[in-house]
Amino acid sequence: MRIVSWGFGAMGKGIAKNVIESKNLELVGVIDLNQEFIGKDVGEILQMEKIGIVVSDNKEIIEKTNPDLVVIATSSFVKDVLPQIEYAVKNHCNVITIAEEMAYPFDSHIKESMYLDSLAKRYGVTILGTGVNPGFVLDTLIIALTGVCNKVNKIVARRINDLSPFGKTVMETQGVGTTPEEFEEGLKNGKIVGHIGFPQSIMMIAKALGWNITKIEQERKPIISKVHRETPVVKVEPGMVAGCNHSAKAYIDDEVVIEMQHPQQIHPHLEGVETGDYIEIYGDPDIKLAIKPEIPGGKATIAIATNMIPIVVNAEPGLKSMADLPVPRSILSIK
Amino acid sequence: MRIVSWGFGAMGKGIAKNVIESKNLELVGVIDLNQEFIGKDVGEILQMEKIGIVVSDNKEIIEKTNPDLVVIATSSFVKDVLPQIEYAVKNHCNVITIAEEMAYPFDSHIKESMYLDSLAKRYGVTILGTGVNPGFVLDTLIIALTGVCNKVNKIVARRINDLSPFGKTVMETQGVGTTPEEFEEGLKNGKIVGHIGFPQSIMMIAKALGWNITKIEQERKPIISKVHRETPVVKVEPGMVAGCNHSAKAYIDDEVVIEMQHPQQIHPHLEGVETGDYIEIYGDPDIKLAIKPEIPGGKATIAIATNMIPIVVNAEPGLKSMADLPVPRSILSIK
Repeated sequence: MRIVSWGFGAMGKGIAKNVIESKNLELVGVIDLNQEFIGKDVGEILQMEKIGIVVSDNKEIIEKTNPDLVVIATSSFVKDVLPQIEYAVKNHCNVITIAEEMAYPFDSHIKESMYLDSLAKRYGVTILGTGVNPGFVLDTLIIALTGVCNKVNKIVARRINDLSPFGKTVMETQGVGTTPEEFEEGLKNGKIVGHIGFPQSIMMIAKALGWNITKIEQERKPIISKVHRETPVVKVEPGMVAGCNHSAKAYIDDEVVIEMQHPQQIHPHLEGVETGDYIEIYGDPDIKLAIKPEIPGGKATIAIATNMIPIVVNAEPGLKSMADLPVPRSILSIK
Repeated sequence: MRIVSWGFGAMGKGIAKNVIESKNLELVGVIDLNQEFIGKDVGEILQMEKIGIVVSDNKEIIEKTNPDLVVIATSSFVKDVLPQIEYAVKNHCNVITIAEEMAYPFDSHIKESMYLDSLAKRYGVTILGTGVNPGFVLDTLIIALTGVCNKVNKIVARRINDLSPFGKTVMETQGVGTTPEEFEEGLKNGKIVGHIGFPQSIMMIAKALGWNITKIEQERKPIISKVHRETPVVKVEPGMVAGCNHSAKAYIDDEVVIEMQHPQQIHPHLEGVETGDYIEIYGDPDIKLAIKPEIPGGKATIAIATNMIPIVVNAEPGLKSMADLPVPRSILSIK
């Protein structure tokens, strides 16, 4: 299968590397606007052997190279990736995007979803939004676990992770290194966003279970550090913000049926916080799952975006979510 | 969707109850050979209200009632359920069976699989083998987790459960209440079988990952009790067998790539054994998952067999495994 990678940040690079190393995939093009990369050999940038393909700032390489699928890793938001998806689909390409809002756009972006579904069907291709979260930990995995339940009354899930490996952009959007006042200001002016994807994960679960959610509440609180914490890109002194504790509650009328918590910070272990993914399903039977440490966000997003390629290429046309398709599986471990 | 339940043991009863209570399913028939049940109202046997359907020993009720799907819960083995599946398919019915060997028969029963796949396609219906294990814990769930891995080198999984709630048949097939000598004898004469499904789970994973397994080794050891253990159906004195520790190793040439352990016994906590489902994936990244206590076998098999009904009815024709279909989800919790 011939693949174009659109977006060559940390995620796009990882996906491109996977595609190059895969036995059944072939990288035929990379699109990115970063001047530093344009015209340079993709293999060379990835510190691998040259592969004879250079990064291009021209999306028309999709038309020229006829890929089976385009992976879009350029933005978190539907408004940004919509024209890119549109362009790929109109060139008869299947699309996987890691834009968080695309993991389940059917409720948050109804018109855009209807348009993309219709477009995909007309061009005979499949569009999927995926990633570690949204896309797996707080939605697909939860849905799969409800499959062994006779009844589900309530779902509670926490993803407690360590942001230390990430770069400046992530620190800024999570408010790491700000004062509590700057954090509040950042929330107001939209520079601090916390996690993107709670409404998508919640509505994907709700659709799967037939739950008619009537309200979603979200809360973003600063994680004030009691100790000194530091990474190569940010310093946090006691009293400053080490991360963002983002949570969401979904209601049916007055009843909370889904609760999610996703505190993201640097070096949580310095205050005794153990990272992990935790899922509790209350029903018949109850299920309590723990993955310790948490599934690492960057690696896992790169993996699932690559691993879903054959499933998406072989799926029926339309805009799909992870809940519509067969379970993901590693395609990079053929022995 | 109109459902016939074939087999009215503990599992069949639970599935029938789920179907009766479901908003979108209708129970239209029950087949069982147990004289105690024949001619009696299904609702009454289940200690619910009468539903106007009596248990029949005649499979022809499938022809008469035209169900969309037949759930077969009569045996663990392909040889026993094959003629039943055949009969249902020839009446244009989709089939779900909890026969363990049907969870992934493509390797252990190649000819039968080819025949059933061909038959299902000719009649335009779908056949699925499922259950908690094989069908979910030691295969589907593992496969899904590899989806967030860039590389998988080895898989180690343990399912440590408590057999105390089960009846006489299970105690006998697991050797609970035997002496160590009787246990060895039971293994030899085939009365003690341990877990049925390791080869199926292993080959389902191997197929998903593209692993060419060259050898599977299985071992069944008695769990000798140090203390007195007792259930309503069996007594175990110190020195006697409290259960069967069944394990399997799958090789590629000389390398062990999958290790599974499934010790099944009554009252494991009496010797400090904590029940749970444990999955360890070694790769990039490593993933360590624990579900404590274990997903309860009986309830979960009843649940997944019911929950897969709409997915199977809507799937493309053929003989499928859980890895071919969208993730299961609870269909019994509509709010």
